[in-house]
Amino acid sequence: MTLALAQAAAGLGRTAPNPPVGCVIVRGAQLVGQGFHPRAGEAHAEVFALREAGERARGATAYVTLEPCSHHGRTPPCADAVIASGVRRVVVAALDPNPQVAGRGVARLRAAGIDVTVGVGADEALRQQAGFRSVMVRGRPWVVAKYAMTLDGKVAALNAHGGGEGNGAVSGALARRRVMQWRDELDAIAVGSGTLLADNPALTTRGIPGGRDPRPVVFDRRARTCPQARAWRPGAVLVAAPGADTAAHEAAGIQVLRAADHAHALDALGELGVSSVLLEGGPVLLGAFLEAGLVDEVRVLIAPKVLGAGLSPLPGPRRPMAQAQDLREVHTEPLGPDVLVTGLLNSIPHLAAEGEH
Amino acid sequence: MTLALAQAAAGLGRTAPNPPVGCVIVRGAQLVGQGFHPRAGEAHAEVFALREAGERARGATAYVTLEPCSHHGRTPPCADAVIASGVRRVVVAALDPNPQVAGRGVARLRAAGIDVTVGVGADEALRQQAGFRSVMVRGRPWVVAKYAMTLDGKVAALNAHGGGEGNGAVSGALARRRVMQWRDELDAIAVGSGTLLADNPALTTRGIPGGRDPRPVVFDRRARTCPQARAWRPGAVLVAAPGADTAAHEAAGIQVLRAADHAHALDALGELGVSSVLLEGGPVLLGAFLEAGLVDEVRVLIAPKVLGAGLSPLPGPRRPMAQAQDLREVHTEPLGPDVLVTGLLNSIPHLAAEGEH
Repeated sequence: MTLALAQAAAGLGRTAPNPPVGCVIVRGAQLVGQGFHPRAGEAHAEVFALREAGERARGATAYVTLEPCSHHGRTPPCADAVIASGVRRVVVAALDPNPQVAGRGVARLRAAGIDVTVGVGADEALRQQAGFRSVMVRGRPWVVAKYAMTLDGKVAALNAHGGGEGNGAVSGALARRRVMQWRDELDAIAVGSGTLLADNPALTTRGIPGGRDPRPVVFDRRARTCPQARAWRPGAVLVAAPGADTAAHEAAGIQVLRAADHAHALDALGELGVSSVLLEGGPVLLGAFLEAGLVDEVRVLIAPKVLGAGLSPLPGPRRPMAQAQDLREVHTEPLGPDVLVTGLLNSIPHLAAEGEH
Repeated sequence: MTLALAQAAAGLGRTAPNPPVGCVIVRGAQLVGQGFHPRAGEAHAEVFALREAGERARGATAYVTLEPCSHHGRTPPCADAVIASGVRRVVVAALDPNPQVAGRGVARLRAAGIDVTVGVGADEALRQQAGFRSVMVRGRPWVVAKYAMTLDGKVAALNAHGGGEGNGAVSGALARRRVMQWRDELDAIAVGSGTLLADNPALTTRGIPGGRDPRPVVFDRRARTCPQARAWRPGAVLVAAPGADTAAHEAAGIQVLRAADHAHALDALGELGVSSVLLEGGPVLLGAFLEAGLVDEVRVLIAPKVLGAGLSPLPGPRRPMAQAQDLREVHTEPLGPDVLVTGLLNSIPHLAAEGEH
């Protein structure tokens, strides 16, 4: 399953609204086929792997990171292709939360006499499929908030006006590279108008071989950003309040999405085919998302330096320590001199299979 | 040397103004003697280990975490005892920075035909001996600043007056236990008057078998704390400004140390036999120490939760990110759900032996 998950990873950030899926076919000790779903509209992972395996699939075991589909979508049901191939055993990382599948793929395999195991490698599979699962079950993208801070909790120094002066130099090279990897893997990158006005960031993926840029999403209620800012490349979305004057942005060809609040904006982004969002905004946008319960995952890079006065990651609200929001499934990882701490605020939507919990 | 360092660790927090030292004597594959320096005035580690080894020391190898002394202090020179024992080889973790020793112990051993290696396990030995080395070379204790913060960089929630409301519940149980271990290992614990007034903390070591309490040091310029506060146990020190009215504290039997600034206070604490200080004060005291360059080591516990508004670890100053103070020799360690990040702001005083750097 580790190999199948590695296959799936090649599709991260490229398959929306479909999930990234990997498949590996093993016969005895021999790997006879592998594949991944490269993008929506192209063949599913199982099809590539079965095609490579050919006749060697007969009697083999297939490892697939998501339950094979049982319905006719843009492609015929993979469960049927698996059955036709003569595979004898299928190991599935996680069931498909799509109500059109939701265990029917596994049931179809079992009805054909195939031995099916579900749940192997489920944790990593769920992480890879968080965006797909989020849109499928909740109708909105999976939101990953990222910030980099010093060891005294500052995301930026203060400028002469008491605002942030930009945060380019908080983290080291390894941490910055990891952020670029996330930009390559998530569908969209979201910032607030303040960030665009202060830094005019490109919001691109740099230094990742074969990397692709995420779709910029700028939360700019009053449409006060410059329509010529660097972030406005094709595919970029301006999220504005219903009454905002967006004429200049529309004239510049920028796609405008009107939403009364951030929750509605996320729903609309899900409809636009955005499964996952990397929230790289400043404290105001991050605070608003957090307080609305819209941040699903947090990734914090901590640099071993102390600054003094500076901008905190969050502007508020004021509440007792006992009411702080706890992260679950916390992981820490050193990245050069920095430390990465990640955790979840919401659970990845998941259908428990029999025998799982 | 690992065993010798483990022996030395038993003396941490108990040997000031002497260093904690451990010694192990190995003959062939057999451990024939071990010992550590338990407290000032008692025998040195080598003496305990040689006593246990007896005749078996002849031809053996001694591992000792600090260069054996060459001068007559409260005890006769250990180098002479080692030579007399018939030990053939001595492995030393680090040279003694005491100007009365400073390589003379090793020279004495070598002159007697003993094979001496210096530098094995030096990093850990330096860490254990940081307090001793600091007082010996710089005349002031080694200062370790500790704070616990949330993943958004807050050490406490805000109370109704905008001040900190206490930080009891930031960290989890493992992190709190680690703090108690530090209190057991460092000579003194320092807080500011604000912490005493707000929390009336006991500043004791709790839950560590065989633990002992550090000496409370309260930085209270104007002597405004209550002389009946819990921290004022025997041995506690009040650091006040030269002109402060400390009559009530003195009447209560509290030792008063008058100092114009924190640097002078540390010098005076060194003279009182305090080799190491755990700085657990609030942002004001920590900020003052940091800006004066008096924080040698930082230990930060980071809890995986986000709070919002709250008290930052440091009150200031305002400066560009590029002028933040970088920590060196950074280590990170998960402690249950929390993460410990440690690093140095100053170097541990160290005499490089030949062949070391």
